[in-house]
Amino acid sequence: MGDPRMKKVREAALMASADELEATFYEAMRQGDLVRLMSVWADDEEVACVHPGGPRVVGGTAIMETFEAIFSNGPVLVSIEQVRRFQSVSCAVHHVLERVQGMSTDGMHTAFVLATNVYVRSEKGWRMVLHHASPGREQDLPEVADFAATVH
Amino acid sequence: MGDPRMKKVREAALMASADELEATFYEAMRQGDLVRLMSVWADDEEVACVHPGGPRVVGGTAIMETFEAIFSNGPVLVSIEQVRRFQSVSCAVHHVLERVQGMSTDGMHTAFVLATNVYVRSEKGWRMVLHHASPGREQDLPEVADFAATVH
Repeated sequence: MGDPRMKKVREAALMASADELEATFYEAMRQGDLVRLMSVWADDEEVACVHPGGPRVVGGTAIMETFEAIFSNGPVLVSIEQVRRFQSVSCAVHHVLERVQGMSTDGMHTAFVLATNVYVRSEKGWRMVLHHASPGREQDLPEVADFAATVH
Repeated sequence: MGDPRMKKVREAALMASADELEATFYEAMRQGDLVRLMSVWADDEEVACVHPGGPRVVGGTAIMETFEAIFSNGPVLVSIEQVRRFQSVSCAVHHVLERVQGMSTDGMHTAFVLATNVYVRSEKGWRMVLHHASPGREQDLPEVADFAATVH
């Protein structure tokens, strides 16, 4: 990844918190910006990604190729809501509900996707190591929880 | 959780590695042993679980209730294969392929489920904080990876 823009966005990513990385990840989806999207991932051959209904994809190059294929159809109109966080000193597990909008022959459709994103802090800063998304649904499934959601 | 057996199995879980916790988790599934299964989870209100096709379930009590409902139909004949691990000092992200066998009116069926399990090490030892399982498939989807799988 000798691309000078990649170097710059990776440096910016190194300074970011898990929340900031997550914001960058979804912003890059909305912009269809592959370089920016890949900047949030850890440089580790065991990073992994499961797209809705898809196989397990392991490693930065393989993950980049899947997003390249997705972006070949244009940016992804996605926003996140109902964020839940498990946070330890060096590991952040975020649970998000993705609201994805797409156009089909009979108009605009919305799908809801449950996703888990994991970020790990190394000496290089916080980086994403996992994105696991379940297949989309037409309706949001209400969360089941011990406590009233404090999500936002 | 004042149950004396719970206390004992929790103490055993505190000494375990992420791999040992994972073995205990799936063994407890095969035994339909709710106390043992819950012993691997962190005592944190943000632990979360997504069963295949299900909603997000957050918190130990809510998670326990889902497994109780599952076990009311008997133990789960599940084994894991193709384990991939991202490991840092205090966070382990495991990717597994679950092979689940179930009986229906026309005989025994096998489903393949992609699952992500996350373990975090605290001062109390390693504990599970996430189980996210995608819906089952009749066929295993081959993994896409940068490097030849070194899984076992």
